[in-house]
Amino acid sequence: MGLKAPDDLRLRLTLTTDFGTADGYAGALKGRILSMAPHAVIHDISHEIAPQAVAQGARCLRRAAPRFPKGTIHLAVVDPGVGSPRAGLIIETERFLLLGPDNGLLSLAAREGGESRIFALEESPPERVRSETFDGLTFFAPAAARLLLGGRPEDLGSRIAESEIETISIKAPQPGEAMVTGEIIFFDRFGNAITNITRAGLEGREPERVLLDGREEADFCGHYANLAGEPGRPGALWNSDGNLELALYSDSISQKLKLREGDKVKLELKN
Amino acid sequence: MGLKAPDDLRLRLTLTTDFGTADGYAGALKGRILSMAPHAVIHDISHEIAPQAVAQGARCLRRAAPRFPKGTIHLAVVDPGVGSPRAGLIIETERFLLLGPDNGLLSLAAREGGESRIFALEESPPERVRSETFDGLTFFAPAAARLLLGGRPEDLGSRIAESEIETISIKAPQPGEAMVTGEIIFFDRFGNAITNITRAGLEGREPERVLLDGREEADFCGHYANLAGEPGRPGALWNSDGNLELALYSDSISQKLKLREGDKVKLELKN
Amino acid sequence: MGLKAPDDLRLRLTLTTDFGTADGYAGALKGRILSMAPHAVIHDISHEIAPQAVAQGARCLRRAAPRFPKGTIHLAVVDPGVGSPRAGLIIETERFLLLGPDNGLLSLAAREGGESRIFALEESPPERVRSETFDGLTFFAPAAARLLLGGRPEDLGSRIAESEIETISIKAPQPGEAMVTGEIIFFDRFGNAITNITRAGLEGREPERVLLDGREEADFCGHYANLAGEPGRPGALWNSDGNLELALYSDSISQKLKLREGDKVKLELKN
Repeated sequence: MGLKAPDDLRLRLTLTTDFGTADGYAGALKGRILSMAPHAVIHDISHEIAPQAVAQGARCLRRAAPRFPKGTIHLAVVDPGVGSPRAGLIIETERFLLLGPDNGLLSLAAREGGESRIFALEESPPERVRSETFDGLTFFAPAAARLLLGGRPEDLGSRIAESEIETISIKAPQPGEAMVTGEIIFFDRFGNAITNITRAGLEGREPERVLLDGREEADFCGHYANLAGEPGRPGALWNSDGNLELALYSDSISQKLKLREGDKVKLELKN
Repeated sequence: MGLKAPDDLRLRLTLTTDFGTADGYAGALKGRILSMAPHAVIHDISHEIAPQAVAQGARCLRRAAPRFPKGTIHLAVVDPGVGSPRAGLIIETERFLLLGPDNGLLSLAAREGGESRIFALEESPPERVRSETFDGLTFFAPAAARLLLGGRPEDLGSRIAESEIETISIKAPQPGEAMVTGEIIFFDRFGNAITNITRAGLEGREPERVLLDGREEADFCGHYANLAGEPGRPGALWNSDGNLELALYSDSISQKLKLREGDKVKLELKN
Repeated sequence: MGLKAPDDLRLRLTLTTDFGTADGYAGALKGRILSMAPHAVIHDISHEIAPQAVAQGARCLRRAAPRFPKGTIHLAVVDPGVGSPRAGLIIETERFLLLGPDNGLLSLAAREGGESRIFALEESPPERVRSETFDGLTFFAPAAARLLLGGRPEDLGSRIAESEIETISIKAPQPGEAMVTGEIIFFDRFGNAITNITRAGLEGREPERVLLDGREEADFCGHYANLAGEPGRPGALWNSDGNLELALYSDSISQKLKLREGDKVKLELKN
């Protein structure tokens, strides 16, 4: 249990925030961490999460964080300021460490890391002034630096149970005899529609065809390139996360079919 | 006086520009500097300053630059092409070096670094072709590389007085017996309204309430989380720069109240 | 022929994609490469290429890639999913390595690197699952890592002829006795209009004046600063790539004159 990464890999940190870069907050965060841990190697995952879009940040982190080398520390800050008495979390998984607010932001990535231990960060009064607006700088940066310098999660907070933290729940699709009914949960930058139907959820059964809200049909095709034969005809495929994704060849299905989050999607299965 | 940073920290450079990234200018700048100083460690502060928005760039740099480790070199390029006969500046502070055009871009950050010495960069004819459009590449990149390789500011230009350079002036608020009158000077990515009223300017007196252009009241509350009780009710707080900031809980006060830069803000003080 | 860079420079990689950052694809790509080649130094050129805009990506890469230190590996992924049976290319030039899809994306940069050898990447079945949507992750990341770890292009694919790959063609301007007729080929972030007329194409003759679609005149001036005297008056200059560029002082000529890609531009030459 816990990280066994060599010391030099312990010095790798990623950042995922909704700060943008033009206000200087992201730069300030980076600079502050480097001032305390000058040998850290920092990689930006994103500073372009939409303002206060916790679910988007959680999905971004889930996709990116598990790919980094074992032992990487992932700091994420997307925080509408929930006013939780709990200042922040460290989630230590078998593969990586997550650091951020207790609002669900870390919860999707945490599930990808194997067994985990969760710690509620303790306030460090000299470093934290509660009246400031920028928790990332005054609170999370020092915590990240302490972890980068070899601090253990138990040095920074006290262990709590998984049931005590906020999580993001994704509605499960409804299974059926010949079809599974799910819905669109978000759109990516290309306008592709990602649904809550997963390959793992089919338990080995094979997809045949997709019905989009009763309005449109989409064939199941393995790959974007297979859509090329029929421009304008919707296709469905498993994306790299294992979710059913609806797409048009070289175009935005979201715009073309005026799709919305929550639209129903029925996946017909082969006999 | 001057930088006493160890040599290896001298190799740290940040970039703040209005280049965006998709045109390849930011990449070209980075590549050129690395070609001349291959062991430099380059951190992006931002390439998303709005085109030619010198004041935004100056604020971004002021927030971010002082947080980096001592000795960091900060190259900033946001330049409408003022046609100044003076090509560029190096400002050496006690904590960091600033490099960029003489149009006020460096002036706010410079004040955060302690005592400073200012140098007017000399043209280096072989490296600079005045007919090119991309000063960052042909002029500032070689200067940055020379500093990274240990060059001293006095090797690259001649010292000038602070009074000779362009600065950005921020209108001071009007102090009064029971209230301070200031104005909104900009909005951040979250739509929060930042004013020219600073905590330091109150000289120990305590804020009570804010009047927004005669239209709205905002309570002074320490922290975003304290706004959560009354969604839709404006709050005021000191931001991490010490400026009075107006905000809505998890929403954009700029959009909701149709605020503009220059709107008057009155801060009532406690007796 | 081929790269003679020292081993440690072989470990430098850049990324140019249309992934954005908020979906986590760019972070996943970076993480996966680092997991396989932990000592790689990765620089972002851009993740903000417009979705599936191969020509924009190619121009970005051409401007940025040649500036990086000799031996840098440049991975670019902008791919509408052409369904080519050919999975990807490595182009080894005298100065750098390019890695990406065979759709023209690499073709402009390749011409800047001197003599080149081209390799068609072979599929690596264990690493590549054709039914996944994210080629960058499942296919290009492992190839990049193998190159970073010292693999030679010939280890990853088989050599093909330049005539076999896709290229991006830029229409040549029409030369004339007293003028050259070209067109606007794209706009940069500042709204400047870049044309297909190049300084090299003039063979030593000197530009005098520019006619914009019969509607407007622009003087040839060396530098943006020279436009400052007459705000609102269009100017023309050679940009840092050697292309004729039309600009307004501190404003967007694209918006002000409602210019479009394809608009004709006539460059009058001095006698």
